[in-house]
Amino acid sequence: MNAYHIIAKKRDKQSLSSKELEFFVRGFADGSVTDYQMSAFLMAVFLNGMNPEETVSLTLAMMGTGKVLDLSAIPGKKVDKHSTGGVGDKVSLVLAPLVAAAGVKVPMVSGRTLGHTGGTLDKLESIPRLRTHLTSAEFVKNVEKVGFSIVAQSSELVPADEGMYALRGVTGTVESIPLIVSSILSKKFAAGIDSIVFDVKCGGGAFMADLASARGLAQELVRVCSLLGKTGRAFITDMAQPLGRAVGNALEVKETIECLRGGGPHDLRELTLELGAEMLSLAGVEKVRGKAVSLLEKLLDGGQALEAFRKFVEAQGGNGGVVSDDSLLPGARSVRTVTAREEGFVSSIDARALGELCVDMGGGRRRRDDEIDKSVGFLLEAKVGEKVSKGSPLCEVHSSSEKGETTERVREAFRIGEQPPGERRILLERVDG
Amino acid sequence: MNAYHIIAKKRDKQSLSSKELEFFVRGFADGSVTDYQMSAFLMAVFLNGMNPEETVSLTLAMMGTGKVLDLSAIPGKKVDKHSTGGVGDKVSLVLAPLVAAAGVKVPMVSGRTLGHTGGTLDKLESIPRLRTHLTSAEFVKNVEKVGFSIVAQSSELVPADEGMYALRGVTGTVESIPLIVSSILSKKFAAGIDSIVFDVKCGGGAFMADLASARGLAQELVRVCSLLGKTGRAFITDMAQPLGRAVGNALEVKETIECLRGGGPHDLRELTLELGAEMLSLAGVEKVRGKAVSLLEKLLDGGQALEAFRKFVEAQGGNGGVVSDDSLLPGARSVRTVTAREEGFVSSIDARALGELCVDMGGGRRRRDDEIDKSVGFLLEAKVGEKVSKGSPLCEVHSSSEKGETTERVREAFRIGEQPPGERRILLERVDG
Repeated sequence: MNAYHIIAKKRDKQSLSSKELEFFVRGFADGSVTDYQMSAFLMAVFLNGMNPEETVSLTLAMMGTGKVLDLSAIPGKKVDKHSTGGVGDKVSLVLAPLVAAAGVKVPMVSGRTLGHTGGTLDKLESIPRLRTHLTSAEFVKNVEKVGFSIVAQSSELVPADEGMYALRGVTGTVESIPLIVSSILSKKFAAGIDSIVFDVKCGGGAFMADLASARGLAQELVRVCSLLGKTGRAFITDMAQPLGRAVGNALEVKETIECLRGGGPHDLRELTLELGAEMLSLAGVEKVRGKAVSLLEKLLDGGQALEAFRKFVEAQGGNGGVVSDDSLLPGARSVRTVTAREEGFVSSIDARALGELCVDMGGGRRRRDDEIDKSVGFLLEAKVGEKVSKGSPLCEVHSSSEKGETTERVREAFRIGEQPPGERRILLERVDG
Repeated sequence: MNAYHIIAKKRDKQSLSSKELEFFVRGFADGSVTDYQMSAFLMAVFLNGMNPEETVSLTLAMMGTGKVLDLSAIPGKKVDKHSTGGVGDKVSLVLAPLVAAAGVKVPMVSGRTLGHTGGTLDKLESIPRLRTHLTSAEFVKNVEKVGFSIVAQSSELVPADEGMYALRGVTGTVESIPLIVSSILSKKFAAGIDSIVFDVKCGGGAFMADLASARGLAQELVRVCSLLGKTGRAFITDMAQPLGRAVGNALEVKETIECLRGGGPHDLRELTLELGAEMLSLAGVEKVRGKAVSLLEKLLDGGQALEAFRKFVEAQGGNGGVVSDDSLLPGARSVRTVTAREEGFVSSIDARALGELCVDMGGGRRRRDDEIDKSVGFLLEAKVGEKVSKGSPLCEVHSSSEKGETTERVREAFRIGEQPPGERRILLERVDG
């Protein structure tokens, strides 16, 4: 067995055995398989695909390069949620404390901003002193005591993924279902979870723009989970417009806190409740959807979810006072309002354009080591379907400079039509195992 | 323009412009495009192909990373021959002095053993003190004075090729027509030639095992030459059995000298005359095939070709006495004869198996820096179609050890049938522009 023959087999559309994938990925982790061999392999996988069994083997091979946490000492099912990334997607920040308040243990390994999409870790780090780099022991302790923890990928877990992920970013091999699935699942299952709910975003602001490709990814995630002996369920949800009203790190944390107080935008609350009900079902806490939703609504409206969030912030070194005083979050130097030029109904809001604009304003990264300005972003004053009149506010722009050039780009992201658009649902499809 | 987008375009089956290919290849040569990006690109090209215009642009981009020799000061057309590699293929060693004796200038940049196939440079270096690393100035001077020169690729010519070639070898991207064509043509045309004859080997001992793939390569070589404003003609020739009777470096030089004395095996002489007649036609020396063949036969039988070879050996620092005293070449420690176990007709000889066995005996390389034992190899005592009786010799094995384990493997390479096989022609097809 050697790296060359493994690459050549995939190149020739043959399936690879678990032994071959283990040899290749382990070799990459220990340096005996080079970067350039991995790149050729990634391109061959991108173009020739993998069957679900190969994706399972690849996932296990990646997990095998590092530590796999054993959370069996913590009673109950450990359930996670993973989103494929969107604009304004702060669901994890609301959902994790909410289901933890219902008794589900959530060990969540999360990511950073990627391209035009935000990252949970960067949002969390707008909270003064909050740490997302914990040791495995701290992580396990927090899951046990607080009910959940949200941390950065530790280099002890799936070390092969970091190098593979970095190579994919520079070799045009990101958008490959087996590579996406193995990257997500290896990290999730190395963190010791039993089951997982996937939020596969679909639409202009997501990596999967159309329903067919979102469905393909959702089905493969669920199928590979099942082949791994785990339970995965997936929702395909709308990412044509930003989720909620806030886009940008600190602004999204503020909106999270509103939602955890029982308020916040309707679509954010609805999606959180749906995903939460599924997590309660997977954890065996409450299998009946209606009852699960009612339970979660009470925990949001009764303040228990907010309290779980406060405990989490403090357990990770942050200032828990942030839950009642959002002036502790960084604020932008300049806030101005972009207004409508005409009367009508908002027919669409270009989520990707706003996400990219947010990066341009310093709210995301162009390079891995870019500093993020946590204060910048947008607050949508009008969402799709809402009526606006000439001069009425569309969006608050929070930026670090007074430069007005952003205004026109923000205005262009909003399309105004004469007729109200058809009603849009946040939940598009559900994919079971 | 950036490397990522160029890789992604090829991944998505789009054609690349000459500017994009130049940017990418130049970037690879100067280090701004990394090895792993080049590997992903090579795999994308392997799987998605290139149209002839892209292959032309890639060839020119590769040439553009180094020097291009200007041989216009030497009068007459400069014509070369390139073989895609076979077992026992010593044609270049006979052909270059032969057509040089007819007045054609042959600036030949040649290669080393690759896998199971022999390399002209390694064969030549069995001649004591002969140098194949000349400066560009020495090369040009020898072409002018002797009529031909055979040298190793200089790092001044097409520096991008060395790295690309090395990456292809370890990433499973060798057998790609656009990559093969651009690698060959960039090196050939950087050496200043006007036209070229290709000997595309076909059969079990060649890289192209079947006629369809050999034809695909031959046609693309000729087409891309023409798009580059040069003339290329291709022959597809048989490589089911080794060419001639000798396989192995010093043994092939001995056979070369026999052939240059007017003797040697029939298939070697026939193929050399065919390719030589084509070179005479391309050089404008003699356009009528029959007349060209007669002229070349006279030069072989009259000793003029041998004399050109002697001058060449001396011009490159070697001992010219080798043309009349082959004891100057290294001899093997052990020579034994493998005999037939049954009576019949040789129906096939597995050229690839003998080529690989020769490598195992030290006559080729497993790694780039392996030392070659020039003395080892085979002398076929029976070729396809010849009658053998039980106990009659099939093959002389020249090796450095007395170990007999080779015997059985050599015997297995020979198939003996009851009936004589159908007649095989050495020349299978000719491909014009």
